[in-house]
Amino acid sequence: MQTHLDCVPCFIRQALEAIRTASDDPALHESLLRTLCKEISTMDLSTPPPVMVRTIHRHVKRMTGLADPYAELKERFNQHALELLPSLREEVAVADDPFELAVRLAVAGNSIDFGTRHDISEELLGRVLTKARTAEFLGSIPRLRQAIEDADSILYLADNTGEIVLDHLLLDQLPLDRVTFAVRGAPIINDATMADAKRTGIAQRVRTIDSGADLPGTLLEESNPQFQAAFRHADLIISKGQGNFETLNTDPSGKIFFLLMIKCGVVARDLNAPVGTFVAMPQSELRNRTMKVHEADCLSRK
Amino acid sequence: MQTHLDCVPCFIRQALEAIRTASDDPALHESLLRTLCKEISTMDLSTPPPVMVRTIHRHVKRMTGLADPYAELKERFNQHALELLPSLREEVAVADDPFELAVRLAVAGNSIDFGTRHDISEELLGRVLTKARTAEFLGSIPRLRQAIEDADSILYLADNTGEIVLDHLLLDQLPLDRVTFAVRGAPIINDATMADAKRTGIAQRVRTIDSGADLPGTLLEESNPQFQAAFRHADLIISKGQGNFETLNTDPSGKIFFLLMIKCGVVARDLNAPVGTFVAMPQSELRNRTMKVHEADCLSRK
Repeated sequence: MQTHLDCVPCFIRQALEAIRTASDDPALHESLLRTLCKEISTMDLSTPPPVMVRTIHRHVKRMTGLADPYAELKERFNQHALELLPSLREEVAVADDPFELAVRLAVAGNSIDFGTRHDISEELLGRVLTKARTAEFLGSIPRLRQAIEDADSILYLADNTGEIVLDHLLLDQLPLDRVTFAVRGAPIINDATMADAKRTGIAQRVRTIDSGADLPGTLLEESNPQFQAAFRHADLIISKGQGNFETLNTDPSGKIFFLLMIKCGVVARDLNAPVGTFVAMPQSELRNRTMKVHEADCLSRK
Repeated sequence: MQTHLDCVPCFIRQALEAIRTASDDPALHESLLRTLCKEISTMDLSTPPPVMVRTIHRHVKRMTGLADPYAELKERFNQHALELLPSLREEVAVADDPFELAVRLAVAGNSIDFGTRHDISEELLGRVLTKARTAEFLGSIPRLRQAIEDADSILYLADNTGEIVLDHLLLDQLPLDRVTFAVRGAPIINDATMADAKRTGIAQRVRTIDSGADLPGTLLEESNPQFQAAFRHADLIISKGQGNFETLNTDPSGKIFFLLMIKCGVVARDLNAPVGTFVAMPQSELRNRTMKVHEADCLSRK
């Protein structure tokens, strides 16, 4: 997915929120804003949005000297989700369809995204979890079940801290001997890294690798050889979140299943569904859908 | 009021909305965005936000060759408000307190501001008019009544098209022989100009001048001599809208009474009230209020 002009106001909002999280110094806030605006004036719009998001957060780290400005928030939401996990597990165990409920709750976890908004709270997560239990999903949860049954090797691309704890619920439903779980190669926003996978018990139950990159998404050419091999070897890739969607939606493999919440207007337009929609969509359906949206766009312009 | 860093995402959003209103050419949209970001990277933040807003709209005019990209929207809301006016006038005439209701409806008209949002509709105006009839106002409508009674010369600074039609309701309550009505010197966003004052019957009933400037606000040093004289001569200035507020809130005259709806987070923070609040506030009260907010800010940082 290319960067849309409408991503730019969002880049700037996110940069301000990030630098304010990392520092109280107004001079740094202004300096980041000016640096970023200058870069946007010549940026390559053909790259997906997470590339500029990475640039923003690299600036924040450089300017503040903090390697992981979101460390406290990350631990807060890992801890909170770990507290929720036992009762959610019990709920899934006695559900009419444990797989479906596990998917719903794991996708609700994708709401813990400090890139798209800064006011995420435990209360918000609670409301999203409640909504996800009964909400209509864009795509098809049964098709994910089928894809998992058909797969010999599954790569699970994680997104955020806190969210990965809810990924336990979906991992409970998977043949773990055939699953590789992948996290980011370095801290970026509140995305999950190897430290989070260990902290939350993921790495202790499933083969866990990292991408080798500090990108809040997945670009194969920037990933390390181990990640590239896992990506190529897998016959099903379960991709969590908007950042992975924005970087992989046009991937030629055709073997990706996207699980995410729509959290911005640009992705909403791409998927032709409102912000807040829960998505469980195989890449094949995505292509048909996007093609239809573009056709409708072309027709409406005539 | 200085430009706040949080004004920047809003500048970019507004620029995109403005260029899309004026042209379907994506190359122009991108070009404006890049030009604007480059300018923001070196902009003077000590100027009030309407100065950069003017720059944006000057670029839009230059790039598209359109002198008044909002002409259609302006006529649409002038026309709509003119259709509403007779029944609103009847309502005011039989109200318990015609002056108070006239102020409430005139302030509601300030919602017709295509700078702060692009999805303004007749339905939205209807909802705001309903809300304004009973909403709590920040400030004091009785103090405006008193200020008008005490004034020998009143300068009424208009803001938007459509809105100026609802200003008729407040003009009905004023000693028109002591009032000068002022509009913008040239088209800027959907702000009212002399053509709109004539189109809506304002210029036919009250002395009407223009600022001589294409600024969506009021800077005395950029205004023509006639406007400067009216400003200096008046002992009460009724200032409509956010743009006039942002440029005049620190004016040393102390004789300004601000009527506006709060439509962005930066002004909301300045006035310590939520977006959507209706304001009828004399400058003296504003100073006390702002001082208190700043004190609270300082204390909360300790």
